[in-house]
Amino acid sequence: MPPNRRFLLMRRPQGTPVPEDFALVTQETPALAPGEFLIRNHYASLDPAMRGWMDAEGNYMPPIPLGAPVRASTIGVIAESRAEGFAPGQWVMGLNALEDYSVGVAGGFTQVIDPAAVPSITNYLSIFGAVGMTAYFGLFEVCEPKPGETVLVSGAAGAVGSLVGQLAKIHGCRAVGIAGGPAKCARLTEKYGFDAAIDYKGKDEAALSEAIAAACPHGVDVIFENVGGIILDAGLMHLNLHARVGLCGLISEYNTAPRGCRNLWQLIVKRAQIRGLLVADYVDRFAEGAAQMGQWAAQGRLTIDEHIDEGLENAFASFMRLFAGTNDGKMILKIA
Amino acid sequence: MPPNRRFLLMRRPQGTPVPEDFALVTQETPALAPGEFLIRNHYASLDPAMRGWMDAEGNYMPPIPLGAPVRASTIGVIAESRAEGFAPGQWVMGLNALEDYSVGVAGGFTQVIDPAAVPSITNYLSIFGAVGMTAYFGLFEVCEPKPGETVLVSGAAGAVGSLVGQLAKIHGCRAVGIAGGPAKCARLTEKYGFDAAIDYKGKDEAALSEAIAAACPHGVDVIFENVGGIILDAGLMHLNLHARVGLCGLISEYNTAPRGCRNLWQLIVKRAQIRGLLVADYVDRFAEGAAQMGQWAAQGRLTIDEHIDEGLENAFASFMRLFAGTNDGKMILKIA
Repeated sequence: MPPNRRFLLMRRPQGTPVPEDFALVTQETPALAPGEFLIRNHYASLDPAMRGWMDAEGNYMPPIPLGAPVRASTIGVIAESRAEGFAPGQWVMGLNALEDYSVGVAGGFTQVIDPAAVPSITNYLSIFGAVGMTAYFGLFEVCEPKPGETVLVSGAAGAVGSLVGQLAKIHGCRAVGIAGGPAKCARLTEKYGFDAAIDYKGKDEAALSEAIAAACPHGVDVIFENVGGIILDAGLMHLNLHARVGLCGLISEYNTAPRGCRNLWQLIVKRAQIRGLLVADYVDRFAEGAAQMGQWAAQGRLTIDEHIDEGLENAFASFMRLFAGTNDGKMILKIA
Repeated sequence: MPPNRRFLLMRRPQGTPVPEDFALVTQETPALAPGEFLIRNHYASLDPAMRGWMDAEGNYMPPIPLGAPVRASTIGVIAESRAEGFAPGQWVMGLNALEDYSVGVAGGFTQVIDPAAVPSITNYLSIFGAVGMTAYFGLFEVCEPKPGETVLVSGAAGAVGSLVGQLAKIHGCRAVGIAGGPAKCARLTEKYGFDAAIDYKGKDEAALSEAIAAACPHGVDVIFENVGGIILDAGLMHLNLHARVGLCGLISEYNTAPRGCRNLWQLIVKRAQIRGLLVADYVDRFAEGAAQMGQWAAQGRLTIDEHIDEGLENAFASFMRLFAGTNDGKMILKIA
């Protein structure tokens, strides 16, 4: 078996992760047991949710054990197999880890994917992966926008947010995005078709609130929330009656003690709701979502940017882009 | 027309209201215009929501104008009438103010009530009024409990909370209440039939969380939230998958800057929701709710405590009981 470079979690990050929380080591790959197969990982998805998996308290997934490689969705090619239905040379996608080789097991989370079905194999980590399905089911199933309504998206230049805005437009909604900096804001309106973009940088809650009022003259019917903090609080002040807030993420709070949502009372005033969403709930409908997304993409109505960094040795720096906001699109790490 | 003692809002309270924010004055009652009638108020409902109406920013109601009497639901007897369908001597209920006499208008919010239909006329301000309907529609329509589920109620010794717990029990749920002090907690289990009571006094968030875990061994499926702050945050940590939080009030935040809800991320982990509720949305179903509540009350399955203070001159002290938690049941002010 080939030696395996693995990006291990060595201690639980306190607040913002530092390089010393991790270690890139080379370990032996154990021989395959019956029913197992060896995946040569080519690309890994880097997602904000991975930060939560590094903490001691489990959330919807058990914590990553200390000394284990950092859990991540990857795509790769089967190198060896002792499992029926998984042949060497086949491309697969699954929940594995940041490492050269992962061992998969028949009946587990790994599925065979068809490189000929997509423009780029990496699309399985973006538009046709958890990111695309989060945008699709999160917007349509959790937020239930109606044509003509206003959809406010935070983290709008991110992988999920940029798709949510485009889906809202396809659905006939007004899409308003919040992102950091003029370059990202320009991308929102020019590339993703948002009706308006709000640059949160340098704005306090009052200034954000003013900007939202200006960009949403008819109020906000749906918030697709990826950020939290003052961005969510400012948005809550502009809800219309019976508005829906889909809570997808709270990236502003992952590395710090949360500031706390202070405008919850607006839910009473507007008889509105906040509902948490997790894409795993829609796994049995991924084919439906991917087919619809694929159709829109083929029609040129969906753009997804992928930000691909190279090299397992850059895993830490690439992961941290998500929190600094220095990625331009879905963050992917090319392993081989 | 008789002279009218009125409890006026003189300035907008900063944080906790003080006596100087109000004034009890005697004013002339203007002559009735056609379509108007004069109500001799006998009882007024004192509710936490009135605190919000005193602020400059409107919520679901316009702010009480400065110099105007403090808005309140009252019941009284028609003293004079120039409106068809409202005859002198009839009992009525409506959204009026803390004053001896209110002028009602045909087609407005005032409705005729039947004193013979209820054990006490004040029940129209408790079990058959906004309080009872808030508990009924808030629990069944917004929180949608299923028999066997666990319902956690904060402010459980209060007017709404005590009814919510009893309704949850009638529905076959486990009811757990949070209240302040051993006397109130004893009332929850002994009088209202809660399965367990948690005394929040002297408990920090961690201790509250521990107490909730102990009282809710199968987790929490529904939170009926009246309080907010660390009580809500502690509850959120024990949600079951797809739990529903009905947000009825946030009394811990009405007189102070909100601490902020810091465990919102649990909505993602548990795919749970927080939904604001306002009883006004169910006005056209009040008859249905009152009939059902009346049936249960007649069967001896519903107990409502009313805490009746006397005298318009005690309006301030009585209102402030709601925030000190020194009322034992639905807070009502006897005016005459």
